[in-house]
Amino acid sequence: MIGYRKSISSENFLQAYSPVQQDYLPENFAIATTDEVDSAVMQAENAFATYKACSPEQKANFLETIAEEINSLGDALIARAMLETGLPEARLLGERGRTTGQLKLFADLLREGSWVEAVIDEALPDRKPLPRSDLRKMLVPIGPVVVFGASNFPFAFSTAGGDTAAAFAAGNPVIVKAHESHLGTNEMIGSAIKTAALKCNMPDGIFSFVVGEGPVTGMQLVKHPGVKAIGFTGSYKAGMAIYKAAVNEREVPVPVYAEMSSINPVLILPQRLKAASATVATQLAGSVTLGVGQFCTNPGLMFLMNDENAEVFINELKEKLLAAPAGTMLNKNVCNNYYEAKNKVSKEAGVAVLFEGDNVSGTVKGTAALLKVNAADFISNPQLQTEIFGPSSLVILCNDQSEMLKALQSLHGQLTGTIIGNAEDCNNYKDCIDVLSSKVGRLLYNGVPTGVEVCHAMVHGGPFPATTDARATSVGADSIKRFVRPICLQDCPPEFLPDALKNENPLGLMRKVNGVYTRGSD
Amino acid sequence: MIGYRKSISSENFLQAYSPVQQDYLPENFAIATTDEVDSAVMQAENAFATYKACSPEQKANFLETIAEEINSLGDALIARAMLETGLPEARLLGERGRTTGQLKLFADLLREGSWVEAVIDEALPDRKPLPRSDLRKMLVPIGPVVVFGASNFPFAFSTAGGDTAAAFAAGNPVIVKAHESHLGTNEMIGSAIKTAALKCNMPDGIFSFVVGEGPVTGMQLVKHPGVKAIGFTGSYKAGMAIYKAAVNEREVPVPVYAEMSSINPVLILPQRLKAASATVATQLAGSVTLGVGQFCTNPGLMFLMNDENAEVFINELKEKLLAAPAGTMLNKNVCNNYYEAKNKVSKEAGVAVLFEGDNVSGTVKGTAALLKVNAADFISNPQLQTEIFGPSSLVILCNDQSEMLKALQSLHGQLTGTIIGNAEDCNNYKDCIDVLSSKVGRLLYNGVPTGVEVCHAMVHGGPFPATTDARATSVGADSIKRFVRPICLQDCPPEFLPDALKNENPLGLMRKVNGVYTRGSD
Repeated sequence: MIGYRKSISSENFLQAYSPVQQDYLPENFAIATTDEVDSAVMQAENAFATYKACSPEQKANFLETIAEEINSLGDALIARAMLETGLPEARLLGERGRTTGQLKLFADLLREGSWVEAVIDEALPDRKPLPRSDLRKMLVPIGPVVVFGASNFPFAFSTAGGDTAAAFAAGNPVIVKAHESHLGTNEMIGSAIKTAALKCNMPDGIFSFVVGEGPVTGMQLVKHPGVKAIGFTGSYKAGMAIYKAAVNEREVPVPVYAEMSSINPVLILPQRLKAASATVATQLAGSVTLGVGQFCTNPGLMFLMNDENAEVFINELKEKLLAAPAGTMLNKNVCNNYYEAKNKVSKEAGVAVLFEGDNVSGTVKGTAALLKVNAADFISNPQLQTEIFGPSSLVILCNDQSEMLKALQSLHGQLTGTIIGNAEDCNNYKDCIDVLSSKVGRLLYNGVPTGVEVCHAMVHGGPFPATTDARATSVGADSIKRFVRPICLQDCPPEFLPDALKNENPLGLMRKVNGVYTRGSD
Repeated sequence: MIGYRKSISSENFLQAYSPVQQDYLPENFAIATTDEVDSAVMQAENAFATYKACSPEQKANFLETIAEEINSLGDALIARAMLETGLPEARLLGERGRTTGQLKLFADLLREGSWVEAVIDEALPDRKPLPRSDLRKMLVPIGPVVVFGASNFPFAFSTAGGDTAAAFAAGNPVIVKAHESHLGTNEMIGSAIKTAALKCNMPDGIFSFVVGEGPVTGMQLVKHPGVKAIGFTGSYKAGMAIYKAAVNEREVPVPVYAEMSSINPVLILPQRLKAASATVATQLAGSVTLGVGQFCTNPGLMFLMNDENAEVFINELKEKLLAAPAGTMLNKNVCNNYYEAKNKVSKEAGVAVLFEGDNVSGTVKGTAALLKVNAADFISNPQLQTEIFGPSSLVILCNDQSEMLKALQSLHGQLTGTIIGNAEDCNNYKDCIDVLSSKVGRLLYNGVPTGVEVCHAMVHGGPFPATTDARATSVGADSIKRFVRPICLQDCPPEFLPDALKNENPLGLMRKVNGVYTRGSD
């Protein structure tokens, strides 16, 4: 879909595979040709000129209309997504609600308006030795944004997901590279966006999606001079290929927000463990197996002291995991990669397999697993930080606090870190918590990392390799900041100032005027 | 200087060259060894653990003490800088004031405190279908920052310049790679920082500087795993080498804020030109020759209509430039590069040299120059966008508005864009202004781009190749945002929350609580 036009120039097609039916689905999706990809970007550039000038209300209305159109797709959307992803109905209903809620959050953010960070320093004509000019600054959109959909969230991180919503909200056109594993879902959502764009009189080219292979179609988009930023959620390998191409293979590098790889360490501290071993085991087992472990926030590492309570806890955890049924995974690749990564890690020095379900061969189903290793082995072997995308976790037993500290220091960057501990634990392990916090985008206490709230305070991001840009979040209100840049206007005549920077503050924004926060007029 | 220790392990030295005396100055500055560079980073990492926990008041006091210590250096500092840079006393006095003012601006920013962008979403335990956790977010420092000093601002963009001040303010230790062209100035300022750090009981390693060649000593810093971000002001070539190394030659890429190359287009619109040709010529000639043209905001391109007023204006501009005396440039390299770049551009197709002073050979002096070309030639030849770092400008004559639009569309990213025009001009040339604004970090009306105010609303940055990161500014309050990242705390027990996120808001910050801006307690 190039702008408002359905374009099929190629004779090459992709089909979606259904992990439920274990077969390809009949529909053909045309692979975009080089010219079609070019057209999508060119139309997006043209649309940008119009769209960036839309009022906050027009953009908010567009986002809300997309949400309505997604809901109008009704049961058919859920049915298709179930077929393509193997995810259960309840989960997909919840994810749809989250996706439309996300669009509405941005609509609210636009109407409130202060996200543009308007800053005004008024002229000081009498200042000595030199007068000060009038200086006013705000965030502005940057142009066409490319979004790579994720397999594990067919709605919330895909065609009309967080990246798309944030880019639209910021004032940019979007081109989605559809994820091969839910092409039908993508097309339905893409059509909903198109209908919404038409209803809201949005310029042709504000949205396109293209179908094709990542290294070909995806890379053409990444390298295209008209593209100004890239959002991606997926594997480390694909994310790094995009990130490096955006820096090395473009005349003008662009920001890449790639969320790639996180194993989400959990620090289980002794007193809390002693007091509530069974509760903690139940909580964590639920989080490890939720959605067949196919969350980027899945708790893949558990650090605990090698004391008398450790064995009790591990046995409880094992029992809970044993009880979890095998679940259909997203696609064959995800399933194969899961077993491969798990087997690879299992064979590393010092790793003991405490429990693993069968590889239910030929069924695209994932079964839970629990591995164990001593901290010394963990510290000396970075291979143990390989992401095992699926319902598996690795317990790291530490002999003392200083070993735990070293193990945490050896960690790569993560989306989340979890602390299971009471107040005394937290005081006793201050240094460990401090190190953990330096590695993560979100630090949570006595909960589970799965379940990412869409709100103002969320950070879904974190130090490399969790993402390529620890300064950003891909969930929540501030994810809009990824697709803007600041501009300063100096001595701009009042009649040419954008509303956000006008003296009279017609939008009623919270602004910083001469260093002071105010909603007042200048 | 490695932390509080003056370390001289190497037998290799650098000397500073004086463009005034046209000879090397006697003092020897030891080149840092690999081990010394390592120590600087290791000590910075250690210092970070202590420094990041300092209160805003402690950090503010540290910054103000640095300003005091710089002032305490008195006339000796100015004398040394004059000798090393050839810059006149008045300019250096002004720049010193700007540098200490910058430190004080950050001290004020820390005391006010809201820059940490505290956001709180309170728990909603009764929400259906799922309760919401308590989520709180703020900006936190990242660790050791490396700063490459600039030759053209020995104070304001060097050892204790904007990058250093911003990194300290954010809560990070700093390692400065001293600029070879003012090694004595660097050592004096470095000592002032050390004295301030000692007076304020700052941890050893909070500040180091190293002397050496960029490709060796500089690159060791860029690739060091302990370094978390890099600030740079200088040439395109050096900036890109740093940027690419930071992405490709590190296990963990880090942000690079390189300010590199800008030729600062000026759009001179017909009605204003007709009404005030002489005034505009005087203003622009002053800006072109200010500081012998050695500003990254020097107006290097002037776009105007090829009408009857163009010739009058060009002649006026030529006369003003003719009257400007040759000025001592920063060093031999800068001077040679100036003449080379100017000669190279002069020889491109269609370029006419309207006026150029002599290459006052052997004197390290730069003389003004004015070149001219037709828009058609400009559009087809990107070589004409080569930065000529010195007192030279290129006039681009456009036959009509659509040609002017095309010429502006062909522009690379810039720090600044200037519009000389009255209200009618601005209305008539809306499209041109819109394109220009998409290329720049700061758009200014009826002024000159040289002179960058240090304030809250400044953006000294811009699209590539002006900088490697258009999201950032290297001048003004928001430059602190380059050296932080957000972290989210979920269900953190109140006693472990940082002050900025406590319910009672003990720091009195402006925060966003449940989506609403407030200075109140929670």
